[in-house]
Amino acid sequence: MTDRRPSRTDHRTDAIMRAALDLALELGYAKLSIEAVANRAGVGKHTVYRRWSSRGLLFLDAVLSLNTEGLSHSNTGDVVADLRETMIKAVDVLGRPPWGPLYQALIGEAQHDPEVAAALNQRFIEPQTADTLARLKAAKDQGELAPDFDLDLAFDMLSGPLYYRLLITQQPITHDYIDRVLQAAFAGMSPRPPTR
Amino acid sequence: MTDRRPSRTDHRTDAIMRAALDLALELGYAKLSIEAVANRAGVGKHTVYRRWSSRGLLFLDAVLSLNTEGLSHSNTGDVVADLRETMIKAVDVLGRPPWGPLYQALIGEAQHDPEVAAALNQRFIEPQTADTLARLKAAKDQGELAPDFDLDLAFDMLSGPLYYRLLITQQPITHDYIDRVLQAAFAGMSPRPPTR
Repeated sequence: MTDRRPSRTDHRTDAIMRAALDLALELGYAKLSIEAVANRAGVGKHTVYRRWSSRGLLFLDAVLSLNTEGLSHSNTGDVVADLRETMIKAVDVLGRPPWGPLYQALIGEAQHDPEVAAALNQRFIEPQTADTLARLKAAKDQGELAPDFDLDLAFDMLSGPLYYRLLITQQPITHDYIDRVLQAAFAGMSPRPPTR
Repeated sequence: MTDRRPSRTDHRTDAIMRAALDLALELGYAKLSIEAVANRAGVGKHTVYRRWSSRGLLFLDAVLSLNTEGLSHSNTGDVVADLRETMIKAVDVLGRPPWGPLYQALIGEAQHDPEVAAALNQRFIEPQTADTLARLKAAKDQGELAPDFDLDLAFDMLSGPLYYRLLITQQPITHDYIDRVLQAAFAGMSPRPPTR
Protein backbone atom coordinates (compact mmCIF):
# COMPACT_ATOMS: atom_id res chain seq x y z
CA MET A 1 0.00 0.00 0.00
CA THR A 2 1.57 3.28 -1.10
CA ASP A 3 -1.31 5.56 -0.19
CA ARG A 4 -1.61 5.76 3.60
CA ARG A 5 -4.31 8.13 4.69
CA PRO A 6 -5.94 6.04 7.40
CA SER A 7 -9.24 7.78 8.07
CA ARG A 8 -10.28 8.16 4.44
CA THR A 9 -9.06 4.63 3.66
CA ASP A 10 -11.05 3.15 6.56
CA HIS A 11 -14.12 5.09 5.62
CA ARG A 12 -13.93 3.85 2.04
CA THR A 13 -13.15 0.30 3.13
CA ASP A 14 -16.20 0.24 5.34
CA ALA A 15 -18.38 1.68 2.59
CA ILE A 16 -17.18 -0.93 0.11
CA MET A 17 -17.73 -3.85 2.49
CA ARG A 18 -21.14 -2.50 3.42
CA ALA A 19 -22.04 -2.20 -0.26
CA ALA A 20 -20.91 -5.81 -0.84
CA LEU A 21 -23.13 -7.06 1.98
CA ASP A 22 -26.13 -5.00 0.86
CA LEU A 23 -25.83 -6.19 -2.72
CA ALA A 24 -25.31 -9.81 -1.71
CA LEU A 25 -28.47 -9.63 0.41
CA GLU A 26 -30.40 -8.05 -2.45
CA LEU A 27 -29.11 -10.09 -5.40
CA GLY A 28 -27.53 -13.18 -3.90
CA TYR A 29 -23.81 -13.84 -3.91
CA ALA A 30 -23.84 -15.40 -7.38
CA LYS A 31 -24.73 -12.06 -8.94
CA LEU A 32 -22.30 -9.96 -6.93
CA SER A 33 -19.67 -8.18 -9.03
CA ILE A 34 -16.81 -5.88 -8.12
CA GLU A 35 -18.23 -3.34 -10.57
CA ALA A 36 -21.65 -3.29 -8.90
CA VAL A 37 -20.05 -3.00 -5.47
CA ALA A 38 -17.88 -0.07 -6.62
CA ASN A 39 -20.94 1.67 -8.09
CA ARG A 40 -22.97 1.18 -4.94
CA ALA A 41 -20.13 2.42 -2.75
CA GLY A 42 -19.52 5.42 -5.02
CA VAL A 43 -15.89 4.56 -5.75
CA GLY A 44 -13.98 3.44 -8.84
CA LYS A 45 -13.31 -0.23 -9.59
CA HIS A 46 -9.59 0.42 -9.12
CA THR A 47 -10.19 1.51 -5.55
CA VAL A 48 -11.76 -1.86 -4.83
CA TYR A 49 -9.11 -3.86 -6.67
CA ARG A 50 -6.33 -1.96 -4.93
CA ARG A 51 -7.39 -3.66 -1.71
CA TRP A 52 -9.04 -6.89 -2.84
CA SER A 53 -7.77 -8.97 -5.73
CA SER A 54 -11.00 -10.93 -6.13
CA ARG A 55 -14.70 -10.83 -5.41
CA GLY A 56 -14.27 -13.76 -3.01
CA LEU A 57 -11.67 -12.00 -0.87
CA LEU A 58 -13.76 -8.84 -0.68
CA PHE A 59 -16.79 -10.87 0.31
CA LEU A 60 -14.76 -12.68 2.98
CA ASP A 61 -13.74 -9.39 4.59
CA ALA A 62 -17.30 -8.11 4.36
CA VAL A 63 -18.76 -11.18 6.06
CA LEU A 64 -16.05 -11.26 8.73
CA SER A 65 -16.61 -7.57 9.45
CA LEU A 66 -19.98 -8.63 10.87
CA ASN A 67 -18.64 -10.60 13.77
CA THR A 68 -14.92 -10.49 14.40
CA GLU A 69 -15.74 -8.65 17.61
CA GLY A 70 -17.23 -10.44 20.54
CA LEU A 71 -16.54 -14.10 19.79
CA SER A 72 -13.80 -14.64 22.36
CA HIS A 73 -14.65 -16.82 25.33
CA SER A 74 -15.43 -15.70 28.86
CA ASN A 75 -14.01 -17.62 31.78
CA THR A 76 -16.70 -17.84 34.42
CA GLY A 77 -15.35 -21.15 35.75
CA ASP A 78 -18.00 -23.15 33.88
CA VAL A 79 -16.48 -24.24 30.58
CA VAL A 80 -19.68 -25.57 29.03
CA ALA A 81 -21.57 -22.37 29.82
CA ASP A 82 -18.76 -20.27 28.36
CA LEU A 83 -18.54 -22.32 25.15
CA ARG A 84 -22.32 -22.22 24.86
CA GLU A 85 -22.33 -18.43 25.08
CA THR A 86 -19.82 -18.06 22.25
CA MET A 87 -21.47 -20.74 20.09
CA ILE A 88 -24.83 -19.00 20.41
CA LYS A 89 -23.30 -15.64 19.51
CA ALA A 90 -21.52 -17.12 16.48
CA VAL A 91 -24.64 -18.92 15.26
CA ASP A 92 -26.84 -15.88 15.85
CA VAL A 93 -24.60 -13.86 13.51
CA LEU A 94 -23.41 -16.39 10.90
CA GLY A 95 -25.79 -19.32 11.22
CA ARG A 96 -29.17 -17.84 10.41
CA PRO A 97 -30.74 -15.14 8.20
CA PRO A 98 -29.94 -12.52 7.19
CA TRP A 99 -26.19 -13.26 7.24
CA GLY A 100 -26.25 -17.08 7.43
CA PRO A 101 -26.94 -17.52 3.71
CA LEU A 102 -24.06 -15.16 2.92
CA TYR A 103 -21.72 -17.17 5.13
CA GLN A 104 -22.93 -20.31 3.32
CA ALA A 105 -22.17 -18.63 0.00
CA LEU A 106 -18.71 -17.69 1.25
CA ILE A 107 -17.94 -21.29 2.20
CA GLY A 108 -19.36 -22.39 -1.14
CA GLU A 109 -16.88 -20.03 -2.81
CA ALA A 110 -14.06 -21.48 -0.68
CA GLN A 111 -14.71 -24.86 -2.35
CA HIS A 112 -13.81 -23.37 -5.73
CA ASP A 113 -11.24 -20.74 -4.73
CA PRO A 114 -8.21 -21.88 -2.65
CA GLU A 115 -7.30 -18.25 -1.84
CA VAL A 116 -10.68 -17.71 -0.18
CA ALA A 117 -10.36 -21.03 1.68
CA ALA A 118 -6.88 -20.11 2.97
CA ALA A 119 -7.95 -16.61 4.00
CA LEU A 120 -11.07 -17.91 5.76
CA ASN A 121 -8.89 -20.24 7.81
CA GLN A 122 -6.19 -17.71 8.61
CA ARG A 123 -8.52 -14.84 9.39
CA PHE A 124 -11.38 -16.56 11.19
CA ILE A 125 -11.16 -20.32 11.78
CA GLU A 126 -7.65 -20.45 13.25
CA PRO A 127 -8.10 -17.57 15.72
CA GLN A 128 -11.46 -19.04 16.83
CA THR A 129 -9.88 -22.47 17.26
CA ALA A 130 -7.03 -20.99 19.30
CA ASP A 131 -9.42 -19.04 21.54
CA THR A 132 -11.52 -22.17 22.13
CA LEU A 133 -8.43 -24.25 22.86
CA ALA A 134 -7.18 -21.69 25.40
CA ARG A 135 -10.53 -21.81 27.21
CA LEU A 136 -10.48 -25.63 27.23
CA LYS A 137 -6.89 -25.70 28.52
CA ALA A 138 -7.90 -23.46 31.39
CA ALA A 139 -10.74 -25.86 32.15
CA LYS A 140 -8.35 -28.80 32.13
CA ASP A 141 -6.02 -26.94 34.50
CA GLN A 142 -9.00 -26.25 36.77
CA GLY A 143 -9.86 -29.97 36.82
CA GLU A 144 -13.08 -29.56 34.84
CA LEU A 145 -12.05 -32.00 32.10
CA ALA A 146 -11.14 -35.67 32.20
CA PRO A 147 -7.45 -36.39 31.53
CA ASP A 148 -8.23 -38.18 28.25
CA PHE A 149 -10.41 -35.36 26.84
CA ASP A 150 -9.13 -34.64 23.30
CA LEU A 151 -8.49 -30.89 23.56
CA ASP A 152 -7.17 -30.51 20.02
CA LEU A 153 -10.24 -32.17 18.53
CA ALA A 154 -12.78 -30.30 20.63
CA PHE A 155 -13.29 -27.37 18.27
CA ASP A 156 -14.01 -29.79 15.40
CA MET A 157 -16.46 -31.78 17.55
CA LEU A 158 -18.28 -28.62 18.61
CA SER A 159 -18.32 -26.67 15.37
CA GLY A 160 -18.41 -29.62 12.94
CA PRO A 161 -22.08 -30.42 13.64
CA LEU A 162 -22.99 -26.72 13.33
CA TYR A 163 -21.29 -26.44 9.93
CA TYR A 164 -22.87 -29.77 8.93
CA ARG A 165 -26.30 -28.31 9.63
CA LEU A 166 -25.52 -25.00 7.92
CA LEU A 167 -24.02 -26.54 4.78
CA ILE A 168 -25.46 -30.03 4.38
CA THR A 169 -28.89 -30.55 5.96
CA GLN A 170 -29.51 -26.79 5.98
CA GLN A 171 -31.86 -27.15 8.96
CA PRO A 172 -32.13 -24.32 11.49
CA ILE A 173 -29.35 -24.26 14.09
CA THR A 174 -31.48 -23.78 17.18
CA HIS A 175 -30.22 -23.14 20.69
CA ASP A 176 -31.59 -26.57 21.58
CA TYR A 177 -29.38 -28.10 18.90
CA ILE A 178 -26.34 -26.31 20.35
CA ASP A 179 -27.20 -27.69 23.79
CA ARG A 180 -27.42 -31.24 22.44
CA VAL A 181 -24.05 -30.87 20.68
CA LEU A 182 -22.47 -29.62 23.92
CA GLN A 183 -24.07 -32.45 25.87
CA ALA A 184 -22.78 -35.05 23.40
CA ALA A 185 -19.30 -33.52 23.14
CA PHE A 186 -18.87 -33.34 26.90
CA ALA A 187 -20.61 -36.60 27.79
CA GLY A 188 -17.26 -38.21 28.54
CA MET A 189 -15.64 -35.03 29.79
CA SER A 190 -15.64 -35.81 33.48
CA PRO A 191 -15.62 -38.98 35.57
CA ARG A 192 -19.14 -40.43 35.77
CA PRO A 193 -20.49 -42.90 38.34
CA PRO A 194 -21.68 -46.25 36.92
CA THR A 195 -25.34 -45.94 35.84
CA ARG A 196 -26.90 -49.28 36.57
CA MET B 1 -40.30 -40.01 -19.54
CA THR B 2 -41.96 -41.08 -22.75
CA ASP B 3 -39.07 -43.02 -24.22
CA ARG B 4 -38.58 -46.22 -22.24
CA ARG B 5 -35.89 -48.44 -23.64
CA PRO B 6 -34.06 -49.40 -20.46
CA SER B 7 -30.79 -50.85 -21.67
CA ARG B 8 -29.95 -48.08 -24.09
CA THR B 9 -31.11 -45.45 -21.57
CA ASP B 10 -28.91 -46.95 -18.84
CA HIS B 11 -25.95 -47.17 -21.13
CA ARG B 12 -26.32 -43.55 -22.14
CA THR B 13 -26.90 -42.44 -18.57
CA ASP B 14 -23.69 -44.11 -17.46
CA ALA B 15 -21.75 -42.60 -20.35
CA ILE B 16 -23.03 -39.12 -19.54
CA MET B 17 -22.22 -39.39 -15.84
CA ARG B 18 -18.79 -40.79 -16.62
CA ALA B 19 -18.16 -37.92 -19.04
CA ALA B 20 -19.21 -35.42 -16.34
CA LEU B 21 -16.74 -36.94 -13.86
CA ASP B 22 -13.91 -37.10 -16.37
CA LEU B 23 -14.41 -33.50 -17.43
CA ALA B 24 -14.72 -32.26 -13.86
CA LEU B 25 -11.43 -33.99 -13.01
CA GLU B 26 -9.76 -32.48 -16.06
CA LEU B 27 -11.17 -28.94 -16.00
CA GLY B 28 -12.55 -28.47 -12.49
CA TYR B 29 -16.22 -28.20 -11.71
CA ALA B 30 -16.37 -24.47 -12.42
CA LYS B 31 -15.71 -25.07 -16.12
CA LEU B 32 -18.06 -28.01 -16.52
CA SER B 33 -20.90 -27.39 -18.99
CA ILE B 34 -23.78 -29.56 -20.17
CA GLU B 35 -22.61 -28.96 -23.72
CA ALA B 36 -19.09 -30.23 -23.03
CA VAL B 37 -20.46 -33.27 -21.20
CA ALA B 38 -22.79 -34.09 -24.11
CA ASN B 39 -19.93 -33.78 -26.59
CA ARG B 40 -17.66 -36.00 -24.55
CA ALA B 41 -20.41 -38.62 -24.10
CA GLY B 42 -21.26 -38.47 -27.82
CA VAL B 43 -24.91 -37.52 -27.28
CA GLY B 44 -26.97 -34.42 -28.00
CA LYS B 45 -27.56 -31.71 -25.38
CA HIS B 46 -31.27 -32.61 -25.40
CA THR B 47 -30.48 -36.13 -24.29
CA VAL B 48 -28.74 -34.74 -21.25
CA TYR B 49 -31.43 -32.15 -20.47
CA ARG B 50 -34.17 -34.79 -20.84
CA ARG B 51 -32.82 -36.41 -17.69
CA TRP B 52 -31.13 -33.57 -15.80
CA SER B 53 -32.52 -30.07 -15.65
CA SER B 54 -29.25 -28.50 -14.50
CA ARG B 55 -25.52 -29.02 -14.42
CA GLY B 56 -25.69 -29.31 -10.63
CA LEU B 57 -28.20 -32.17 -10.66
CA LEU B 58 -26.21 -34.07 -13.30
CA PHE B 59 -23.05 -33.60 -11.27
CA LEU B 60 -24.83 -34.81 -8.13
CA ASP B 61 -25.85 -38.06 -9.83
CA ALA B 62 -22.37 -38.49 -11.26
CA VAL B 63 -20.69 -38.07 -7.87
CA LEU B 64 -23.21 -40.30 -6.08
CA SER B 65 -22.73 -42.98 -8.73
CA LEU B 66 -19.23 -43.41 -7.29
CA ASN B 67 -20.31 -44.71 -3.95
CA THR B 68 -23.99 -45.42 -3.42
CA GLU B 69 -23.02 -49.08 -3.13
CA GLY B 70 -21.26 -50.41 -0.10
CA LEU B 71 -21.87 -47.70 2.50
CA SER B 72 -24.41 -49.60 4.60
CA HIS B 73 -23.28 -50.73 8.02
CA SER B 74 -22.30 -54.24 9.04
CA ASN B 75 -23.47 -55.59 12.40
CA THR B 76 -20.60 -57.53 13.90
CA GLY B 77 -21.74 -56.79 17.45
CA ASP B 78 -19.15 -53.99 17.84
CA VAL B 79 -20.86 -50.72 16.97
CA VAL B 80 -17.72 -48.58 16.97
CA ALA B 81 -15.88 -51.00 14.65
CA ASP B 82 -18.87 -51.10 12.29
CA LEU B 83 -19.21 -47.31 12.17
CA ARG B 84 -15.48 -47.00 11.66
CA GLU B 85 -15.57 -49.34 8.67
CA THR B 86 -18.29 -47.33 6.94
CA MET B 87 -16.70 -43.97 7.78
CA ILE B 88 -13.39 -45.11 6.32
CA LYS B 89 -15.09 -46.36 3.15
CA ALA B 90 -17.00 -43.09 2.75
CA VAL B 91 -13.92 -40.94 3.33
CA ASP B 92 -11.79 -43.09 1.02
CA VAL B 93 -14.27 -42.42 -1.81
CA LEU B 94 -15.54 -38.89 -1.14
CA GLY B 95 -13.03 -37.38 1.28
CA ARG B 96 -9.76 -37.45 -0.63
CA PRO B 97 -8.46 -37.12 -4.21
CA PRO B 98 -9.42 -37.83 -6.88
CA TRP B 99 -13.13 -37.58 -5.99
CA GLY B 100 -12.91 -35.54 -2.78
CA PRO B 101 -12.45 -32.21 -4.57
CA LEU B 102 -15.46 -33.02 -6.75
CA TYR B 103 -17.59 -33.77 -3.69
CA GLN B 104 -16.38 -30.45 -2.24
CA ALA B 105 -17.42 -28.71 -5.46
CA LEU B 106 -20.82 -30.40 -5.27
CA ILE B 107 -21.39 -29.14 -1.74
CA GLY B 108 -20.17 -25.73 -2.85
CA GLU B 109 -22.84 -25.79 -5.56
CA ALA B 110 -25.46 -26.80 -2.97
CA GLN B 111 -24.79 -23.47 -1.20
CA HIS B 112 -25.99 -21.60 -4.28
CA ASP B 113 -28.58 -24.02 -5.70
CA PRO B 114 -31.41 -25.17 -3.37
CA GLU B 115 -32.39 -27.95 -5.81
CA VAL B 116 -28.93 -29.49 -5.53
CA ALA B 117 -29.01 -29.12 -1.74
CA ALA B 118 -32.41 -30.83 -1.52
CA ALA B 119 -31.41 -33.64 -3.87
CA LEU B 120 -28.13 -34.23 -2.00
CA ASN B 121 -30.08 -34.64 1.22
CA GLN B 122 -32.81 -36.86 -0.21
CA ARG B 123 -30.55 -39.05 -2.27
CA PHE B 124 -27.51 -39.44 -0.03
CA ILE B 125 -27.55 -37.78 3.39
CA GLU B 126 -30.95 -39.02 4.58
CA PRO B 127 -30.42 -42.69 3.60
CA GLN B 128 -26.95 -42.63 5.20
CA THR B 129 -28.38 -41.06 8.36
CA ALA B 130 -31.14 -43.68 8.50
CA ASP B 131 -28.68 -46.54 8.03
CA THR B 132 -26.43 -45.16 10.79
CA LEU B 133 -29.39 -44.68 13.11
CA ALA B 134 -30.56 -48.27 12.54
CA ARG B 135 -27.09 -49.56 13.46
CA LEU B 136 -27.02 -47.38 16.59
CA LYS B 137 -30.51 -48.53 17.62
CA ALA B 138 -29.38 -52.13 17.36
CA ALA B 139 -26.41 -51.26 19.58
CA LYS B 140 -28.70 -49.65 22.12
CA ASP B 141 -30.93 -52.73 22.11
CA GLN B 142 -27.85 -54.89 22.64
CA GLY B 143 -26.85 -52.77 25.67
CA GLU B 144 -23.79 -51.26 23.98
CA LEU B 145 -24.90 -47.66 24.48
CA ALA B 146 -25.68 -45.68 27.61
CA PRO B 147 -29.38 -44.84 28.04
CA ASP B 148 -28.76 -41.11 27.58
CA PHE B 149 -26.76 -41.49 24.33
CA ASP B 150 -28.30 -39.06 21.81
CA LEU B 151 -29.04 -41.44 18.92
CA ASP B 152 -30.61 -38.80 16.68
CA LEU B 153 -27.60 -36.52 17.00
CA ALA B 154 -24.98 -39.23 16.50
CA PHE B 155 -24.73 -38.95 12.72
CA ASP B 156 -24.13 -35.20 13.02
CA MET B 157 -21.47 -35.73 15.71
CA LEU B 158 -19.68 -38.34 13.59
CA SER B 159 -19.94 -36.81 10.14
CA GLY B 160 -19.91 -33.13 11.19
CA PRO B 161 -16.17 -33.11 11.98
CA LEU B 162 -15.41 -34.94 8.72
CA TYR B 163 -17.34 -32.38 6.67
CA TYR B 164 -15.72 -29.60 8.71
CA ARG B 165 -12.30 -30.90 7.69
CA LEU B 166 -13.32 -31.43 4.06
CA LEU B 167 -14.97 -28.03 3.62
CA ILE B 168 -13.44 -25.63 6.15
CA THR B 169 -9.92 -26.51 7.25
CA GLN B 170 -9.41 -28.68 4.14
CA GLN B 171 -6.85 -30.80 5.98
CA PRO B 172 -6.51 -34.51 5.09
CA ILE B 173 -9.11 -36.76 6.72
CA THR B 174 -6.80 -39.50 7.95
CA HIS B 175 -7.85 -42.78 9.51
CA ASP B 176 -6.31 -41.50 12.74
CA TYR B 177 -8.62 -38.49 12.61
CA ILE B 178 -11.63 -40.82 12.17
CA ASP B 179 -10.50 -42.81 15.21
CA ARG B 180 -10.24 -39.67 17.31
CA VAL B 181 -13.72 -38.56 16.25
CA LEU B 182 -15.14 -41.97 17.18
CA GLN B 183 -13.31 -41.89 20.49
CA ALA B 184 -14.67 -38.42 21.30
CA ALA B 185 -18.23 -39.20 20.13
CA PHE B 186 -18.40 -42.40 22.16
CA ALA B 187 -16.49 -41.19 25.21
CA GLY B 188 -19.73 -41.00 27.17
CA MET B 189 -21.38 -43.91 25.39
CA SER B 190 -21.10 -46.46 28.14
CA PRO B 191 -20.89 -46.33 31.93
CA ARG B 192 -17.34 -45.52 33.07
CA PRO B 193 -15.82 -46.12 36.47
CA PRO B 194 -14.65 -43.00 38.32
CA THR B 195 -11.05 -42.22 37.34
CA ARG B 196 -9.62 -40.71 40.46
